[in-house]
Amino acid sequence: MNTLGEIFKLTSFGESHGPAMGGVIDGVPAGVGIDVQALQQFVNRRRPGQGQPGATTRHEADKVEILSGIWQGQTLGTPIGFIVRNSGQHSSDYDSLASCYRPSHADYSWDAKMGIRDPRGGGRASARATVASVVAGGIAMQVLDTLGITIVAHIAQVGNVTGSEQQMQQAITQAQQQGDTLGGIIACTIGGVPAGLGEPVFGKLHARLASAMMSINAVHGFEYGDGFAMAAQRGSEMLDLFERRPDGSIGTTTNHSGGIQGGISNGQDITMRVAFKPVPTLMRDVPVVDREGNVTTLPPSGRHDCCVLPRAVPIVEAMAAMVILDNYLLQQTRHLK
Amino acid sequence: MNTLGEIFKLTSFGESHGPAMGGVIDGVPAGVGIDVQALQQFVNRRRPGQGQPGATTRHEADKVEILSGIWQGQTLGTPIGFIVRNSGQHSSDYDSLASCYRPSHADYSWDAKMGIRDPRGGGRASARATVASVVAGGIAMQVLDTLGITIVAHIAQVGNVTGSEQQMQQAITQAQQQGDTLGGIIACTIGGVPAGLGEPVFGKLHARLASAMMSINAVHGFEYGDGFAMAAQRGSEMLDLFERRPDGSIGTTTNHSGGIQGGISNGQDITMRVAFKPVPTLMRDVPVVDREGNVTTLPPSGRHDCCVLPRAVPIVEAMAAMVILDNYLLQQTRHLK
Amino acid sequence: MNTLGEIFKLTSFGESHGPAMGGVIDGVPAGVGIDVQALQQFVNRRRPGQGQPGATTRHEADKVEILSGIWQGQTLGTPIGFIVRNSGQHSSDYDSLASCYRPSHADYSWDAKMGIRDPRGGGRASARATVASVVAGGIAMQVLDTLGITIVAHIAQVGNVTGSEQQMQQAITQAQQQGDTLGGIIACTIGGVPAGLGEPVFGKLHARLASAMMSINAVHGFEYGDGFAMAAQRGSEMLDLFERRPDGSIGTTTNHSGGIQGGISNGQDITMRVAFKPVPTLMRDVPVVDREGNVTTLPPSGRHDCCVLPRAVPIVEAMAAMVILDNYLLQQTRHLK
Amino acid sequence: MNTLGEIFKLTSFGESHGPAMGGVIDGVPAGVGIDVQALQQFVNRRRPGQGQPGATTRHEADKVEILSGIWQGQTLGTPIGFIVRNSGQHSSDYDSLASCYRPSHADYSWDAKMGIRDPRGGGRASARATVASVVAGGIAMQVLDTLGITIVAHIAQVGNVTGSEQQMQQAITQAQQQGDTLGGIIACTIGGVPAGLGEPVFGKLHARLASAMMSINAVHGFEYGDGFAMAAQRGSEMLDLFERRPDGSIGTTTNHSGGIQGGISNGQDITMRVAFKPVPTLMRDVPVVDREGNVTTLPPSGRHDCCVLPRAVPIVEAMAAMVILDNYLLQQTRHLK
Repeated sequence: MNTLGEIFKLTSFGESHGPAMGGVIDGVPAGVGIDVQALQQFVNRRRPGQGQPGATTRHEADKVEILSGIWQGQTLGTPIGFIVRNSGQHSSDYDSLASCYRPSHADYSWDAKMGIRDPRGGGRASARATVASVVAGGIAMQVLDTLGITIVAHIAQVGNVTGSEQQMQQAITQAQQQGDTLGGIIACTIGGVPAGLGEPVFGKLHARLASAMMSINAVHGFEYGDGFAMAAQRGSEMLDLFERRPDGSIGTTTNHSGGIQGGISNGQDITMRVAFKPVPTLMRDVPVVDREGNVTTLPPSGRHDCCVLPRAVPIVEAMAAMVILDNYLLQQTRHLK
Repeated sequence: MNTLGEIFKLTSFGESHGPAMGGVIDGVPAGVGIDVQALQQFVNRRRPGQGQPGATTRHEADKVEILSGIWQGQTLGTPIGFIVRNSGQHSSDYDSLASCYRPSHADYSWDAKMGIRDPRGGGRASARATVASVVAGGIAMQVLDTLGITIVAHIAQVGNVTGSEQQMQQAITQAQQQGDTLGGIIACTIGGVPAGLGEPVFGKLHARLASAMMSINAVHGFEYGDGFAMAAQRGSEMLDLFERRPDGSIGTTTNHSGGIQGGISNGQDITMRVAFKPVPTLMRDVPVVDREGNVTTLPPSGRHDCCVLPRAVPIVEAMAAMVILDNYLLQQTRHLK
Repeated sequence: MNTLGEIFKLTSFGESHGPAMGGVIDGVPAGVGIDVQALQQFVNRRRPGQGQPGATTRHEADKVEILSGIWQGQTLGTPIGFIVRNSGQHSSDYDSLASCYRPSHADYSWDAKMGIRDPRGGGRASARATVASVVAGGIAMQVLDTLGITIVAHIAQVGNVTGSEQQMQQAITQAQQQGDTLGGIIACTIGGVPAGLGEPVFGKLHARLASAMMSINAVHGFEYGDGFAMAAQRGSEMLDLFERRPDGSIGTTTNHSGGIQGGISNGQDITMRVAFKPVPTLMRDVPVVDREGNVTTLPPSGRHDCCVLPRAVPIVEAMAAMVILDNYLLQQTRHLK
Repeated sequence: MNTLGEIFKLTSFGESHGPAMGGVIDGVPAGVGIDVQALQQFVNRRRPGQGQPGATTRHEADKVEILSGIWQGQTLGTPIGFIVRNSGQHSSDYDSLASCYRPSHADYSWDAKMGIRDPRGGGRASARATVASVVAGGIAMQVLDTLGITIVAHIAQVGNVTGSEQQMQQAITQAQQQGDTLGGIIACTIGGVPAGLGEPVFGKLHARLASAMMSINAVHGFEYGDGFAMAAQRGSEMLDLFERRPDGSIGTTTNHSGGIQGGISNGQDITMRVAFKPVPTLMRDVPVVDREGNVTTLPPSGRHDCCVLPRAVPIVEAMAAMVILDNYLLQQTRHLK
């Protein structure tokens, strides 16, 4: 329930306004070098309050404290326990939330599930929970790096702006001034993946990637390769013809398939796109209902992102890294050494 | 690897040209009535050769043989083993495939994974493997029916045609005459789901649905609620405001969220869309490479669908049913009886 | 629930008086040669009615039908589905059982669990369910054989007889004449296991072996190495001192530890002992209660083993094989290739 | 690998000489009252340095720090993250261990597994890792308590002394004076378990208990009910006859089966016995080999228990509690609410 993966596994914990977020990373092979400082820098990329337009002003040090599994810069083969203290919580920001359901938030569905709800803000439903994924994904990326596998994500769309970073920033600034929020699309490319990762029926590589991306807060869509656009195409338009490369290897001349065929990587770049809805926390009065169903109005409060896309880029990379490393390790069981 | 689910679990097996497909369904509660005849009718909906334009002419009886777990029309609480014999296999259809890689098929990636490949057609990579999912999903649907949960999928788009069934059929007929193939989009709505299903971080309800849909052959995209369209919207445009219903319950006035908030069902209809690429088996000469990388041409052969969408509708329903029932059962562990 | 293993996994199904037993074996690497005839011979070793004194006279052909995953004597890397038809069921033998609880059988606890019970004999609680384990374990043994790992079990004790096979057979014959039953102990040795298999905390190699052995019907105890006898010893009496072997390798001069230290194999023979209670089905009148708690008498009926030990030997070997192969494959994820 | 359980799950981490031990407890239902002070007292029972004869003089505060999942004395339904700082580590105690293999320790097998070894003492192989299990088990016990389920373990044997606590203490004192160590047997009884917990084939209740007990350091044997003694008995001697109780319920007149029949609890007390070998760390010179196989002598050092039985009692209780609660929750999925 709070675990992702089969061999490389993250089990995470933490509520946004509790003492700490954290997790246990299991299945990392022994003897891999981990640069803890580089890991911290990777985690910093999702940290709030870094001056992007539209970012929450909540400040978190997000210092990663490794408690086990790494010793003198090397993995021990034992589980890596870690915590990230929540230094910036202001529970009082959220007092008014305890008894009401905000629209398009998880307040109501959470209450229906648990029958009890941490009134200190979003609790476990908060996007703050992604910090544990970024720590684990950051470690996965360092392992993948030794294997020549690279993962790079970028913002492909903010609101209805594609392409120009400057226009994206303008759109965010404008929405923020209006107390509104923006969604968008993040594209991600994974290079250097050997052919053969993924499973043929359940556990297809893109199914695992989809599931991981869908676990990021606010994500509403996933596609790989040419994705939804393929629905309107003809088969003859999207065949990825094979060719022999100069080095003797076999590859494809195009990559409509996004590097995955039949659920298994084919050695081409893996490409995917992840759609984020605009976050539902507006800096405006918003109509809410209380537990009895009475409609009231919630004034803007707390500190929230107007657009989460900039901070979500390392999260997408982290989720991708965990899935790829897990499948890489799983593939090692497919042939007897 | 060949298992889907946590409590309600399907473990499936079978290659398209072996003796039988089949599986084991675990976790079905005891004492539930199962109408085996109705199950057979549900399975028949994905059967090839039912006169749809564009369907393969391979004929399979697809008779479901239940071997355990159901006795006198009732579940025993034990695993339900079942097989579906492959009666229509013509291995000789595929002899020419054994040594070559077809574009946008799993031949190459499978070889890279396994180092060995069943040359009798698609083997386990064939869409025939979905028959096991439809059997298990059909049983899940009967269980859900007793809980008032209904699942209905339909074709929302074929090629670039949306809306009119007659135009869709014309598009399929035309593509078939040209030896080409068409993809499309299937929409699915799940009604009657109680609020509270799904997990907050990993295992979000939509992540489980995405993963299940992505395990269907040829699927390249998934979205729920307003999906990718939300990326271009503003937060203020897509809030699902809560209201008190005449019966005293709390619901939302709109359903942009697709019945899921924070990964947990909120009691509204769950809506999703699944994008299929056109199948890559054209009824034309197609350039392939052999294991050494030599390009050659494969003439059309075998019996294949020009458009899989009609047959995929019950598959989408079946996958959805398995995920919902699994989460329903999982939710029963959330409170002490 | 009906699955054993993490990578090499058996998911089994079947009730003793239904149409068939069977299962799905997942995680077998591709390209391994499987001798199906030798597999059948291994399965035959647990078959009833082979003339041992004290064996049930129920005759089952126990013909293994492989439905997938093996082609032309080689594994495909896909799940191996198989069934074994129940040819010898005489449901009428059991009519009188449907409404009563036999002492030391699973009738009562099963009813409490499921609320419904297959009245056709033991159903899923029958030792017949072990046939699926023997099929899967037989395949595991063939894989292990290619790795130089051998598994041999034997009967160490029948009733209070140890050592002499002739005396054991006399004890069984005598008990059978008295309508009584006997338990005993099976010892098992696994040779050729490389050092390094098993996990340090949960999933210790002996914990996995214990769990597997405890899943065999009638087993009430498990020990490895010197086992229970170690409780009465001093540390100084049971140290396994290391030495350098002539070939330069490191080994131990004694093997009190049974080949496992800290949950991880150390390269010595793995030794274990498994205690079976006498089966509770006597060939005498036995007092039972019905669902209302009325005490009545059940006359002897059905066909049952007086002592299951001879047939349990291959079952113990099969369970051990599955655990060892699973851990062997798991260990391949511990180091990056 | 470092996770125990299916629904109620503990994932633990920590090396004995790293900064902290800890874990994540998933699957605890929401809204259960947890007395954190009582939990601390339970954890204190396994703490070293409590004046028992033969206990290590290493002093650990073993203060449990709850980081999530519990708020104002109630579970939130979210994962419970916790840490226990390692305050007493003296790494220098262990410097001499880094390059040698101690007899009957995990040094050699660990090196074979990982290729790297934390030279700071036992690392993850240390019995200190059980502190995480005791925290999780302590929480499970509090949940079980609300269900009327009680778990009590006691020392049944120390060395060859059974029965008299005074004699046991004398034996420990004597062995300690001789620089030697003692094993023993812990018996455990679980009362108030409803009939119906456990699974019929794999995942039998006693298989789950065996596996959990076998994960405790130094355990070499497990039996339930009359255990190994049943091997020498006749079926007619060990039938647990059913009777109708004055309150109308059905129970058994004896309990040779140890409360479990066919892998499923039958409502009687669950009884089991767990055999511990004497710990291999003597307070004497011990012959060891180094990585090259050279035999040398290791003088006594570090702080170790002469007999771990007193401290193992709460560990046995904790492991039992986790298994029973897990099965209790799993059983809730067996019937549709």
